[in-house]
Amino acid sequence: MSNVKALPLLEPDVDPAVEPCCPPLTERPLTAEEAVRTAAMFKALGDPVRLRLFSSVASHQGGEACVCDISDVGVSQPTVSHHLKKLKEAGLLTSERRGTWVYYRVAPSVLAAMARMLGQYAP
Amino acid sequence: MSNVKALPLLEPDVDPAVEPCCPPLTERPLTAEEAVRTAAMFKALGDPVRLRLFSSVASHQGGEACVCDISDVGVSQPTVSHHLKKLKEAGLLTSERRGTWVYYRVAPSVLAAMARMLGQYAP
Repeated sequence: MSNVKALPLLEPDVDPAVEPCCPPLTERPLTAEEAVRTAAMFKALGDPVRLRLFSSVASHQGGEACVCDISDVGVSQPTVSHHLKKLKEAGLLTSERRGTWVYYRVAPSVLAAMARMLGQYAP
Repeated sequence: MSNVKALPLLEPDVDPAVEPCCPPLTERPLTAEEAVRTAAMFKALGDPVRLRLFSSVASHQGGEACVCDISDVGVSQPTVSHHLKKLKEAGLLTSERRGTWVYYRVAPSVLAAMARMLGQYAP
């Protein structure tokens, strides 16, 4: 992605329904609606296989990977595809089809927003 | 907590079994063992009610709360206690009994480590 956005949390390929919404968890109690949206993102990383696949995509050369690149986590390729789809639905990955393969890429704005929710702890 | 530790990720009241273990997700693929430990923490925040309770504790005056303080999320007190226990088992909260009540407090080192895993994205 070469163009710089004025609003770093908005990217064209992120579904608005999964946009990160919320202040740091230490700032105020989340509303029910905020909690539903945000819990879905944490839940997506709450499965060991999915988390390994996510780190495989995130750390892959060039910041993207297709199923063909990351099938070494001990599950079948359809299972890999299933988990990648879940990560995409949660807004953590974006995808693009090129030829035979779908390439997945981390959605950095969503990750950064999750980190911000966790990271600003000032007791 | 008044004493400063040489190792900021170690705190006396955090079970070593739930200590954060891992590099940023973008650095390299997680091993299976690392993924199991880390996914448990994300999973703990992957439930809307639990996430609301967590943010209630984290944002409560003084950085701690007992069940008596945070029963406004629409579930029964035993359910609140159940979720707080799960958050504690995942290493996200610590607890201390004082008189009648158990007080819960965010484990800041664990949160910071989770934020670090998510936050150091450099595409």
